[in-house]
Amino acid sequence: MSVTAAQGFEAAGVAVGLKSTGANDVAVVVNRGPKKVGAAVFTSNRAKANPIIWSQQAISDGIVEAVVLNSGGANCFTGSFGFQTTHQTAEKAAELLGAGAGDVIVCSTGLIGTGDEVFRAKVLDGVAKGIAELSTAGGEAASLAIMTTDSRPKTAAITRDGWTVGGMAKGAGMLAPGLATMLVVVTTDADLTAAEADTALRAATRVSFDRLDSDGCMSTNDQVTLLASGASGIRPEGDAFAQALADVCRDLAEQLQGDAEGASHDIAIEVVGAASEEDAVVVGRSVARNNLFKAAIFGNDPNWGRVLAAIGTTDAAFDPYDVDVSFNGVRVCTAGGPDRPREEVDLTPRRTHILIDLRVGDAAATILTNDLTHDYVHENSAYSS
Amino acid sequence: MSVTAAQGFEAAGVAVGLKSTGANDVAVVVNRGPKKVGAAVFTSNRAKANPIIWSQQAISDGIVEAVVLNSGGANCFTGSFGFQTTHQTAEKAAELLGAGAGDVIVCSTGLIGTGDEVFRAKVLDGVAKGIAELSTAGGEAASLAIMTTDSRPKTAAITRDGWTVGGMAKGAGMLAPGLATMLVVVTTDADLTAAEADTALRAATRVSFDRLDSDGCMSTNDQVTLLASGASGIRPEGDAFAQALADVCRDLAEQLQGDAEGASHDIAIEVVGAASEEDAVVVGRSVARNNLFKAAIFGNDPNWGRVLAAIGTTDAAFDPYDVDVSFNGVRVCTAGGPDRPREEVDLTPRRTHILIDLRVGDAAATILTNDLTHDYVHENSAYSS
Repeated sequence: MSVTAAQGFEAAGVAVGLKSTGANDVAVVVNRGPKKVGAAVFTSNRAKANPIIWSQQAISDGIVEAVVLNSGGANCFTGSFGFQTTHQTAEKAAELLGAGAGDVIVCSTGLIGTGDEVFRAKVLDGVAKGIAELSTAGGEAASLAIMTTDSRPKTAAITRDGWTVGGMAKGAGMLAPGLATMLVVVTTDADLTAAEADTALRAATRVSFDRLDSDGCMSTNDQVTLLASGASGIRPEGDAFAQALADVCRDLAEQLQGDAEGASHDIAIEVVGAASEEDAVVVGRSVARNNLFKAAIFGNDPNWGRVLAAIGTTDAAFDPYDVDVSFNGVRVCTAGGPDRPREEVDLTPRRTHILIDLRVGDAAATILTNDLTHDYVHENSAYSS
Repeated sequence: MSVTAAQGFEAAGVAVGLKSTGANDVAVVVNRGPKKVGAAVFTSNRAKANPIIWSQQAISDGIVEAVVLNSGGANCFTGSFGFQTTHQTAEKAAELLGAGAGDVIVCSTGLIGTGDEVFRAKVLDGVAKGIAELSTAGGEAASLAIMTTDSRPKTAAITRDGWTVGGMAKGAGMLAPGLATMLVVVTTDADLTAAEADTALRAATRVSFDRLDSDGCMSTNDQVTLLASGASGIRPEGDAFAQALADVCRDLAEQLQGDAEGASHDIAIEVVGAASEEDAVVVGRSVARNNLFKAAIFGNDPNWGRVLAAIGTTDAAFDPYDVDVSFNGVRVCTAGGPDRPREEVDLTPRRTHILIDLRVGDAAATILTNDLTHDYVHENSAYSS
């Protein structure tokens, strides 16, 4: 499991005091090759943290030798001092690994606006300690080091014909499209070119992390990085790698959903009968972001009126008076009017399925979201994050 | 105050059992003339209730003689039976008033998907009872009849040089732009043409109700109607009427904000230094709809990082690293970096002011919103609405 499941990778997770609990807070993942192929996608938020600004440059040549990740501070809106911290982090890792600083990706997560001298000293300390502890069994420790409000680490791995894809993720809040408050590193020993890695990563994130919309809030620090070592010596056939990568990313996205802050329901909003996949995504997202719908699910109320009111705000192709809506298999709304009585719907299970049939085409998409609960309000009002 | 403050208007509010509490639930407002000028704006939600579909037709000639409003049922997504209910409501009022059905506006509010035979019978009963009780002192009773989860009635009136503008509003949740879950009737005895009434109403709603975004959820039933009797015999000079109407609408919008479901803070998000008014609105709305920001205000946390993360999702003109943010007069963020310590900010008062300076132009706009609280989740999960 995790980022050391594939051949050619070492990792470590260490504690340097960024977390007041004393838990692991700096992770290092290193690609030992023989190839050092990398690809990455970043938050589409225009408010980008310093590690995002750095890593967007570092990834441009398609070569990545190491990823350094820290929790306990986002290093976002911390000015030129903060950018220098990221730069020094990459330089220190490069020096200790005998690599170039431009081949080191940096990821940070935590409170926006914090990243002072103490933060910098601890992160640099973590780079040294982490590189000293690198091992092919370090994947689990690394997955612990990137946790913030996560209640558990998230890892996944798939092995196909002689090659493996494995990854780790963190994220429990500020989960929204354009990438959620999350850091993800996926490794593979498949033999890929940089272009192949980039294409497969963009395709995989489009149908996994980009369809997770827990609370509509887009982070400043999100990043998904793919490292390919080629250590298996195997070039996957056809789209086998793209499929395996998408499976790992979907698995990690569902783990993020399942651990979302304060949530009591994991809701899959499946939109079918759409004129286009884009329309299906827009419609699903409008429901996922509707606080009244989200509160109704928390209250175990199959309130289909709130679903129709939400999708009515979009410009997707459909007739509001010819839409069907089902909650957990019970069709409560047919052609924009009442159907089965709401008493027939059981919304007590955590896993919740909403089916929306727009009845205009053949396209479909599923958006993953969570309900709006007292615990969500509590976790996001009682603590800064 | 209310819709009978201006000359030429009678109103009533009666109880016919649509509300289980026995409170007033049907209101009638009648324009006795001499002129019967009307203008209206409607929800931009594509999922429109039957009363909206009816009233959009009825307003097209610029003549309105009466408005019938009911709480206790939205008559939305109730099929052709529901549309017939609205039609019969207008016909009954027209018959009793000696008017044409096409000059009667109908408004409904309550749970989506309900509007059966019992509902129809009660509404028609309310039309008869309401018309029997019409009086020039009926404005207060009418304002009580349109309440749903509102904790208090909302009315306002302004008298200028011989003419008056008065109105009533309801709305406590599903408050969002494109008009909120709200019904508003404003009357005036100023002498206006239909075109003047329409122009003034659109201008007034654009800077009042359209800038209220309590919870980002757009209703299916929203409607603002302006009735002008001309009974004062005075044609207001210049833009005096437009200004008075905007003042009344802003007053009512602030009353809606102040009574929003479960809210503990009334937040004014003032965006200045924008390249255009549209940009200022987009930026303000992105903050108003950010659940993490809203929860932070509930927790009295001046979390400016969440403000920048929210505005970074827009395409408005600004540099995220050159934006200033103040909370209640304390500038906690200057040029995208920390300024005054957050401990200096006092967020305990209900009235909260966020100032965002984009530093690129001279345009400005203020969006009104509320915080995300336990009570909001409770009210919208424990009850269907």
